[in-house]
Amino acid sequence: MSEQVGKQSLQFSNPPYVLSCSSVVGTREGKGPLRDQFDVVSEDDHFDSENWETAESMLQKKALKIALDKAAVLPEELRYLFAGDLLGQSVATSFGLQEFQVPLIGLYGACSTSGLSLSLAAMTVAAGYADLAAAVTSSHFASAEKQFRFPLEYANQRPLCTTWTVTGSGAFLLAGGGKYLDLKRRNHHEKIFAEDPDDLAFKDWNNSRDIVISGVTTGKILDYGVRDSMNMGAAMAPAAMDVIRAHFEDFGRTPEDYDWIVTGDLGQVGKQILIELLMEKGIDISANHTDCGIEIFDNEKQKTGSGGSGCGCSAVTLAAHFLPMLRSGEIRRLLFVPTGALLSKISFNEGKNVPGIAHAVVLESRIFGQQENGRPEKRNQNKEAKK
Amino acid sequence: MSEQVGKQSLQFSNPPYVLSCSSVVGTREGKGPLRDQFDVVSEDDHFDSENWETAESMLQKKALKIALDKAAVLPEELRYLFAGDLLGQSVATSFGLQEFQVPLIGLYGACSTSGLSLSLAAMTVAAGYADLAAAVTSSHFASAEKQFRFPLEYANQRPLCTTWTVTGSGAFLLAGGGKYLDLKRRNHHEKIFAEDPDDLAFKDWNNSRDIVISGVTTGKILDYGVRDSMNMGAAMAPAAMDVIRAHFEDFGRTPEDYDWIVTGDLGQVGKQILIELLMEKGIDISANHTDCGIEIFDNEKQKTGSGGSGCGCSAVTLAAHFLPMLRSGEIRRLLFVPTGALLSKISFNEGKNVPGIAHAVVLESRIFGQQENGRPEKRNQNKEAKK
Repeated sequence: MSEQVGKQSLQFSNPPYVLSCSSVVGTREGKGPLRDQFDVVSEDDHFDSENWETAESMLQKKALKIALDKAAVLPEELRYLFAGDLLGQSVATSFGLQEFQVPLIGLYGACSTSGLSLSLAAMTVAAGYADLAAAVTSSHFASAEKQFRFPLEYANQRPLCTTWTVTGSGAFLLAGGGKYLDLKRRNHHEKIFAEDPDDLAFKDWNNSRDIVISGVTTGKILDYGVRDSMNMGAAMAPAAMDVIRAHFEDFGRTPEDYDWIVTGDLGQVGKQILIELLMEKGIDISANHTDCGIEIFDNEKQKTGSGGSGCGCSAVTLAAHFLPMLRSGEIRRLLFVPTGALLSKISFNEGKNVPGIAHAVVLESRIFGQQENGRPEKRNQNKEAKK
Repeated sequence: MSEQVGKQSLQFSNPPYVLSCSSVVGTREGKGPLRDQFDVVSEDDHFDSENWETAESMLQKKALKIALDKAAVLPEELRYLFAGDLLGQSVATSFGLQEFQVPLIGLYGACSTSGLSLSLAAMTVAAGYADLAAAVTSSHFASAEKQFRFPLEYANQRPLCTTWTVTGSGAFLLAGGGKYLDLKRRNHHEKIFAEDPDDLAFKDWNNSRDIVISGVTTGKILDYGVRDSMNMGAAMAPAAMDVIRAHFEDFGRTPEDYDWIVTGDLGQVGKQILIELLMEKGIDISANHTDCGIEIFDNEKQKTGSGGSGCGCSAVTLAAHFLPMLRSGEIRRLLFVPTGALLSKISFNEGKNVPGIAHAVVLESRIFGQQENGRPEKRNQNKEAKK
């Protein structure tokens, strides 16, 4: 039985379950509209570290620890870690996750890495290669500015189309059906006898609905010739367009099949370009599209230009904002499309274009064991997308 | 049916076949002992490019093109590309492979990336997620020196324990059993009517034996506290030890079950450390261990310090030197263990350690459809390993 759908998608016959997730963010995110939804909002972007790269490592470490704690599983129960960040040679991941001692698949897809890590973790669990796997990604405003633009000390000015890298890390634990049921029973049993039933470990277990990753569409590199590293939204929009178009074609679906289509960090500039590019292909997502970079900041008040960006942006917004909606059943099916700009400081200085890539992940709200039609029940019921 | 073996390994019940492979190298490699085995030896390390990063992109582009040509398949027949390099934000891959327009999984595991890409491509094909996938990795001496140490123009001196980054790229096409047989028949049929039966497209199809990836062991990050970026062999040897030990434990095997155990780029310094570390665990690989970094250069004549290194080192040595031995049946089972040092220029300058990682891939020589015992037939028959 093949799981292949169309030219570049997979549909899982045994979809992996999202066992738990976590979100750890910095100060700017803690002042944004999602402030009450994150697991941890730090009061100090240094995270007790001597430099920004180590601070980002601390973000990943905390995020994975919390996701493990929420599910009440130990690191040695994880069979694989799928992880990455934006820094050269992915040093935030290498130094942040080494103490967990889990076999590591290091990934790089710029800000699309959160989609890439979820895709590969889902593929691995769905294939029976692991009962339990984790996907972790991060970004940090200060380490990213230093990596791609200028150190903060330069206090350079930024054009309005620029996005602001999110300081944050999101972690997701995925489990196969059998393992998920075992852990759900174990944790339910433990909760009954727990001293504090409101303990973090039981936080995600109070809902009757479960979340699965039912399919993925893996993206190609798209290059429309953008060379402005201060306008990532424009650079990444074509790749988002291409993978969303391919996804609908492969699955034979339309935007109406999703409550939300959520891109990673196109921001307000990229969002408009994406909607126009898809419109040219005859696909109208304007009624149910939003972008994590738009959700995470109040751009006008917080002066965050076009919006948030970075692997951390899409990861924490999914974990803190969208997964709870799927957990409660408020929404039934979501297309998560993190977007990445494949540049480096060197490629930029050498005058190269900024090609983009995006990967799509289908998340659905289900009742355990039931294969529902994940189509939204009431079309347009929750279309209060930010403009 | 689970493919999981032990704590961190997989054994494939439907192992993917190595359909074709390629090796493209630079001038120094072209003067080494494997000079006659590479597909392309360039006369110019610039590869007609204006900078070193673009030169490395050209290497990947050429390598994948040749692997496709050898198997007579088109890029659009590939379902996934698993690829990476050593440069910050993997720019050699992004700019080298975008024109093929294949869904891309970007990887980063430093020099272990050739093992990581083969592992994930094998997992993906074995799971039925793809009939055809490619794994491509590269490194370039000049871009790596600029990235990790000093631009070549500085003409800095190097200690003897330093390894020399290989200028090269290796590509591998993996196919599921059904697709492999189809392509083998198609190419055999075409060869009969071809004007030039010695055409590149038929080069790898003349042998009766086939090569499968029968299993993988994914490594963890190991950090023994090495801080010397000029001694990568010492930094990576503990990770190689750990994954080899885990591999033998998971599969219940010993070194005698392999014709060769081939690490990626430990060089002469790292080789000795690896052998001693494994000896402490009661495992003696001294009789059948070698290292791609030792095979690729004549260190004494070529003054290449401890040996070759880089993702390109292990990839081209596997493609050019070891796969033909498996193809002919000269050897039957090989454990390929590329090793990576997880540092960046920034982490080094911030005084961080150089942690290591390694991933193990089992390659076996088979006759199509026959599940043989892959143990070497005559122990020690080919133990002319370089010291």
